[in-house]
Amino acid sequence: MHRIVKQRSRKAGLPPGTPVHIGERRSETTHIRLMHYTAAQVTERETANVDECAVLRGAGVSWVHVTGVHDVALLSQLGGCFGLHPLVLEDIANTDQRPKLEDYGDYVYIVLRLLHDGAEGYAAAATEQVSLILGRDFVLSFEEAEPTAFDAVRERLRTNRGKIREQGADHLAYSLLDAVVDNYFVVLERLGERLEQLYDEVGSRPSPRTPTLLHALRRELVLLRRAVWPLREVLGSLERGSTALVAAETRVYLRDVYDHTVHAIETLESFRDMVAGIHDIHLMGLSNRLNEIMKVLAIIATIFMPLSFLAGVYGMNFRHMPELDWPWAYPAVLGVMLAVGGGMLYYFKKKKWF
Amino acid sequence: MHRIVKQRSRKAGLPPGTPVHIGERRSETTHIRLMHYTAAQVTERETANVDECAVLRGAGVSWVHVTGVHDVALLSQLGGCFGLHPLVLEDIANTDQRPKLEDYGDYVYIVLRLLHDGAEGYAAAATEQVSLILGRDFVLSFEEAEPTAFDAVRERLRTNRGKIREQGADHLAYSLLDAVVDNYFVVLERLGERLEQLYDEVGSRPSPRTPTLLHALRRELVLLRRAVWPLREVLGSLERGSTALVAAETRVYLRDVYDHTVHAIETLESFRDMVAGIHDIHLMGLSNRLNEIMKVLAIIATIFMPLSFLAGVYGMNFRHMPELDWPWAYPAVLGVMLAVGGGMLYYFKKKKWF
Amino acid sequence: MHRIVKQRSRKAGLPPGTPVHIGERRSETTHIRLMHYTAAQVTERETANVDECAVLRGAGVSWVHVTGVHDVALLSQLGGCFGLHPLVLEDIANTDQRPKLEDYGDYVYIVLRLLHDGAEGYAAAATEQVSLILGRDFVLSFEEAEPTAFDAVRERLRTNRGKIREQGADHLAYSLLDAVVDNYFVVLERLGERLEQLYDEVGSRPSPRTPTLLHALRRELVLLRRAVWPLREVLGSLERGSTALVAAETRVYLRDVYDHTVHAIETLESFRDMVAGIHDIHLMGLSNRLNEIMKVLAIIATIFMPLSFLAGVYGMNFRHMPELDWPWAYPAVLGVMLAVGGGMLYYFKKKKWF
Amino acid sequence: MHRIVKQRSRKAGLPPGTPVHIGERRSETTHIRLMHYTAAQVTERETANVDECAVLRGAGVSWVHVTGVHDVALLSQLGGCFGLHPLVLEDIANTDQRPKLEDYGDYVYIVLRLLHDGAEGYAAAATEQVSLILGRDFVLSFEEAEPTAFDAVRERLRTNRGKIREQGADHLAYSLLDAVVDNYFVVLERLGERLEQLYDEVGSRPSPRTPTLLHALRRELVLLRRAVWPLREVLGSLERGSTALVAAETRVYLRDVYDHTVHAIETLESFRDMVAGIHDIHLMGLSNRLNEIMKVLAIIATIFMPLSFLAGVYGMNFRHMPELDWPWAYPAVLGVMLAVGGGMLYYFKKKKWF
Amino acid sequence: MHRIVKQRSRKAGLPPGTPVHIGERRSETTHIRLMHYTAAQVTERETANVDECAVLRGAGVSWVHVTGVHDVALLSQLGGCFGLHPLVLEDIANTDQRPKLEDYGDYVYIVLRLLHDGAEGYAAAATEQVSLILGRDFVLSFEEAEPTAFDAVRERLRTNRGKIREQGADHLAYSLLDAVVDNYFVVLERLGERLEQLYDEVGSRPSPRTPTLLHALRRELVLLRRAVWPLREVLGSLERGSTALVAAETRVYLRDVYDHTVHAIETLESFRDMVAGIHDIHLMGLSNRLNEIMKVLAIIATIFMPLSFLAGVYGMNFRHMPELDWPWAYPAVLGVMLAVGGGMLYYFKKKKWF
Repeated sequence: MHRIVKQRSRKAGLPPGTPVHIGERRSETTHIRLMHYTAAQVTERETANVDECAVLRGAGVSWVHVTGVHDVALLSQLGGCFGLHPLVLEDIANTDQRPKLEDYGDYVYIVLRLLHDGAEGYAAAATEQVSLILGRDFVLSFEEAEPTAFDAVRERLRTNRGKIREQGADHLAYSLLDAVVDNYFVVLERLGERLEQLYDEVGSRPSPRTPTLLHALRRELVLLRRAVWPLREVLGSLERGSTALVAAETRVYLRDVYDHTVHAIETLESFRDMVAGIHDIHLMGLSNRLNEIMKVLAIIATIFMPLSFLAGVYGMNFRHMPELDWPWAYPAVLGVMLAVGGGMLYYFKKKKWF
Repeated sequence: MHRIVKQRSRKAGLPPGTPVHIGERRSETTHIRLMHYTAAQVTERETANVDECAVLRGAGVSWVHVTGVHDVALLSQLGGCFGLHPLVLEDIANTDQRPKLEDYGDYVYIVLRLLHDGAEGYAAAATEQVSLILGRDFVLSFEEAEPTAFDAVRERLRTNRGKIREQGADHLAYSLLDAVVDNYFVVLERLGERLEQLYDEVGSRPSPRTPTLLHALRRELVLLRRAVWPLREVLGSLERGSTALVAAETRVYLRDVYDHTVHAIETLESFRDMVAGIHDIHLMGLSNRLNEIMKVLAIIATIFMPLSFLAGVYGMNFRHMPELDWPWAYPAVLGVMLAVGGGMLYYFKKKKWF
Repeated sequence: MHRIVKQRSRKAGLPPGTPVHIGERRSETTHIRLMHYTAAQVTERETANVDECAVLRGAGVSWVHVTGVHDVALLSQLGGCFGLHPLVLEDIANTDQRPKLEDYGDYVYIVLRLLHDGAEGYAAAATEQVSLILGRDFVLSFEEAEPTAFDAVRERLRTNRGKIREQGADHLAYSLLDAVVDNYFVVLERLGERLEQLYDEVGSRPSPRTPTLLHALRRELVLLRRAVWPLREVLGSLERGSTALVAAETRVYLRDVYDHTVHAIETLESFRDMVAGIHDIHLMGLSNRLNEIMKVLAIIATIFMPLSFLAGVYGMNFRHMPELDWPWAYPAVLGVMLAVGGGMLYYFKKKKWF
Repeated sequence: MHRIVKQRSRKAGLPPGTPVHIGERRSETTHIRLMHYTAAQVTERETANVDECAVLRGAGVSWVHVTGVHDVALLSQLGGCFGLHPLVLEDIANTDQRPKLEDYGDYVYIVLRLLHDGAEGYAAAATEQVSLILGRDFVLSFEEAEPTAFDAVRERLRTNRGKIREQGADHLAYSLLDAVVDNYFVVLERLGERLEQLYDEVGSRPSPRTPTLLHALRRELVLLRRAVWPLREVLGSLERGSTALVAAETRVYLRDVYDHTVHAIETLESFRDMVAGIHDIHLMGLSNRLNEIMKVLAIIATIFMPLSFLAGVYGMNFRHMPELDWPWAYPAVLGVMLAVGGGMLYYFKKKKWF
Repeated sequence: MHRIVKQRSRKAGLPPGTPVHIGERRSETTHIRLMHYTAAQVTERETANVDECAVLRGAGVSWVHVTGVHDVALLSQLGGCFGLHPLVLEDIANTDQRPKLEDYGDYVYIVLRLLHDGAEGYAAAATEQVSLILGRDFVLSFEEAEPTAFDAVRERLRTNRGKIREQGADHLAYSLLDAVVDNYFVVLERLGERLEQLYDEVGSRPSPRTPTLLHALRRELVLLRRAVWPLREVLGSLERGSTALVAAETRVYLRDVYDHTVHAIETLESFRDMVAGIHDIHLMGLSNRLNEIMKVLAIIATIFMPLSFLAGVYGMNFRHMPELDWPWAYPAVLGVMLAVGGGMLYYFKKKKWF
């Protein structure tokens, strides 16, 4: 189960702009992948030394991708190299951010959350923080752990599929955003399948762990909602052209990602409705089951209590009970008992008790 | 049951603007119906060759209607012919879009969802994606499958009823929008009838499948809501004149479709209320039934337990029980039993237990 | 029970602006009442011939009131006479409109819904469509059936009470709006009384038909809400002076009707709260009743089961049961039984079970 | 219990601007209190004659306070004297208004609702209509009944505490508004105490009248909400300077009253939450109680049914039952019974049934 | 349990701007801590004499921190010294304010609420009012009690960490706001841990005090929500630059605090969801338990009632019961009993009752 509140209190009392890593450490070491491209060519390097970053700059677009954000010293170096505000560095290291867009004039800082589908069962969708910084001719991206969601984009850059190398840094940033949002649907599809499965199960054979499971799912949906919902505003603001760093032709593409995000949000909303529906069906199932049990109990009791009473009457030891001596009394009483029992059954049948 | 999430993940990793068909393939082949009309005359042709599209252009309005959107190559050809943005083609092929309006300057791209009334029972309303592209002198429309919802419009064009041929392409687009929205009421009426029927049933004879049925209906309503709700914004934006492609006199008509859409939305909302009401009545019915059963059980037990106890007392084998020898003891005990039973019944009657 | 969806599908496929009567036909024939007045005099005529409408025009205000909207031919004639848009005629005949205001420049088209208090019991409030058209010097009004809600206005025009004849057509339109809204409170008062009555009933003697009744009331409230809620926007738009046809001094009066409408809406909202409250009380009543029944059952069973067991023990036929021969055994056992029963009762008393 | 709808229908059919008293008549006679003050002096008079009103005007501020609004003739005279619109007079007499602000240019008409704490128990908070009219140099105030909420303001005027006499009519109006809002907290505090008390009660000893009580409280909260909520908008509009009659320095004070109103609204909201919470606790209490009862019943039945069966077996009259003759059979059976009963108890103990 | 309404009624009737202490007195005496700093040096003094305040002013920033707000006379002196509006003083003393921002031109008055984690168990989070006044070159801060939340800021000023002394008064105000918001996460983390704990408990072993506990938690969340929610608006307004007292470079930092506040609000919302979820699980647990109990009861009764009846039949004393004399009748009856009991068990097993 994921903690709703991370250990953010570690930061209380520190001056603002002090980068402190908050969240679990997901990767051992920090990797830096550099890419520099123009329409004609692409240079790629893997390094752990930040100083090379500056070297790469020049005509064309530079993309610096960092995996692992717990190395606070490295973040600071990088910040110095690209002229980032201390608060941006602080936010990159604090992996408990909600999606947001901050415009610092020369560059735009975007926080996204990547969804992961947990392996261990239902309550497992995890979210990872992805930070993007879009400058005039560079894009910085930060992920918490491998495997990275951006391999397809890197491949496209190498092969120049979709003429991606002929576009500016804004188009690269769009491609990264698109990769993250496309990834949402993978997680949502799997979650949808689980919901369908639970829905089928709850109708046929309810189990005592259903409420716990439902609650875990609801909690997971809350987590996903918090990860996806604010992205809508972020993309809407980018698309409406709040920053000069994004060209008009890129905005059409951003509108597309925006649409996908809205679609993901709506899917999450219908998942919520579905969880609520499963909850209702489960509750009604419990009620139905109780009614079923009580009906059996009532039928049995209503039939056998009068019969037992009758048997009890003729089990009394009074000396003067003339019926006891009648020769046909025993079969007569048995007959009466049969009639009473049958009558009861007929009555319940007519009342549709079974 | 319709899947809430379609297999959208097939697209993850592809460059943007790559049309990929997402959704079930509803028609075998792709049909193209061409229509070109001026106030004076109308030309109509059925073809599978996109090249003819361009031929038709000239004075007057061209309407190209495509049935079946899985033929990605054909879509690309058509896109080249009418100068469509790759993202538009991608969206036409991806049949999992929500209703939206996108203004590309020279043309407007509108996504609608057509409602179908499923055949197999309650949980069956399906939605199909309809794409409209309104240009200066042409309208492109895309449907997933036959039968098409636009036959009445085509007939009206042939006969020039309502002087439709004397209007521009914007009026044709309005007519298509109107046809889709008019169709909503057919589905809503049938859904309304089902609801009334379920409502009558639930009061008189509740069944264990009611919760599942209610949930299916609620899910269907969610699907319909997602299909209809965003249309309001689309039409509102068209009506307020967000695009120069729509003439002022057409806007009055668009306001009318807008009103119909609002009406459809309100009807959906009252269906939601109604489903909630049926849910409540069903729950209360279960509660009432349980009370009913418990009452029978309690009455029977409360009457026969004391009586059986009495019989048990005189069934004890103590040697010294003087009552056993009294000659009128047996009838007296029977009398006492009658009195106790009758008293109990009278007490329950007074407490209105039955 | 009123249908939520009227047979609107009859219209699907027809060109826009074709008036088709939708809804039940409430009056046999169509009546037209003409009134023409200046500050000095008033002319009144009852006719079935639309041609006279034009005759009446001139200095002063003309009021044409039509009862019965199913005569589509007559509507078309009237439309020609006053230059109405075909869509307006279509909306007048289609009695399934929601309240709205449409500004056609020369005239304003307003749809209202009049509330009727049904006669046959709880679920009976009906709504009827009233259309108003306000022109520079004329008002057209359309009602579905007699009796008309506007008799008081007509009387005021005859006697010139409140100097109504000295005002323009906008003041007449206001008076008609006011008459409709004033009428709301008559229906709301009666509905409020029913709710109070049901509220009193549900506390003292719940009945199995309460859930159905509550649902019918809730449904009725939804209908009323849909009839009254959009009127707020209509009046707000009129009052804020969206049209030049309404003079500034009339706006003060419209603000007053607006206030009344808000008041009616708030009353409806508190009715909703009240219905929800009655629902809760009913549910809790059911719960309480079940507890009550179970308590009686539990007390009886808990007392008599041990006693019956005791009697059963001494009803066993073992040869060697020394107690059976003790002379004071029987009274002793009776004493023990009394003690056990009394002890149980005391325990339940202490636990406040009764 | 207060009626939700007052007999407003009495007004239907009357021309607008006809003052009709709606609501219960709370005071026998109508009192008028006149006050005229400048920074230097204050004149005070009690009268029943409206003609004196005009006399008092001149340099300084006049305050005319009327207690009792059922004397329609007097209202009309006053209206003539201060040039009030007929609709204002109508609204003053109709004590069923919601809080609102109407700007008539020369004067502002404000409707407020004063809260009263009913004497007879829980469901008793009543609201009374207070009308304020703020002109350039006069304030008119109307209350339905004695005792008046404005005595403290009157006293402050006499003693010139807080330099109130040196301010204009707008400051007087503010003081009256402040007095009304301050009074809200008196009622809210008492309501809060009742809620705390009910909350304590419901946990320890639930009673069958709790649902009715809760519903009455919820209804009371709805009434209060309707009285307080719209005031926020009224004060917000005054504070933002919608009217020229309010000086800039008074606006700071109005912001203060606005804050208090928001505070009162939030308190009402938390009361609503609290009532909902008490409802939940009560419901859960019922559920717990039912479980408790069923547990006792189940334990007793589960123990004694097998035992009674055993006793029944050895009470059978078969001739050939060898056990009956064994000398140690009776104690053995008693031992078995003890073991069975004890085992059951141990099982229930282990399952934590008691 | 914290009272929802404080004794605000003490103020009713007093002229506005009269400071009256409302709320519990949390500290015995009132402390004043003075700090005056420039980039070069810092002066610090602890005093109880307000007159020294003025002395400190000059180049640089002055910070006057007051602990304890019940000393109304001291507040008035301070107000005179810094030229504060009487309403500000009134609000500082009235510790029942909601977070707000009031712009008085020369200075800005901000009310915040500090969260405290109560010591005595679950329902214990308390809120304390913190008032901030930001002027051109001074900051006044008011807390109700020790220990103060601002010690870290004071320490940073002394050591000039983060170059805080080189910034203006606006940066100091930001630092204080940041300290308060950082503190929220400490309380939220602890609350989150309690919720997780309760969540684990409720699934495994529900207790009768769970509803009360849940209600207390919900109430606490309402209190926290009221403390944190309005802060969003306050910070948003500061950040958007509503006042000239805040420099552009400080706004970037305020955006950061704003983000943290939004994060805190979202955490509170998910706590609400979690409490609702725990409530549902508890309710379902109760239902499950009841079903469990009823099942045991029904199984026992359904098995032993027919058996006891059988025994009762052969316990009847009829003379003519031929079976009684058959030698193998007794074992046969025992066999039948075994078969009936076993059959019942098999039936229940098949129906998955246990």
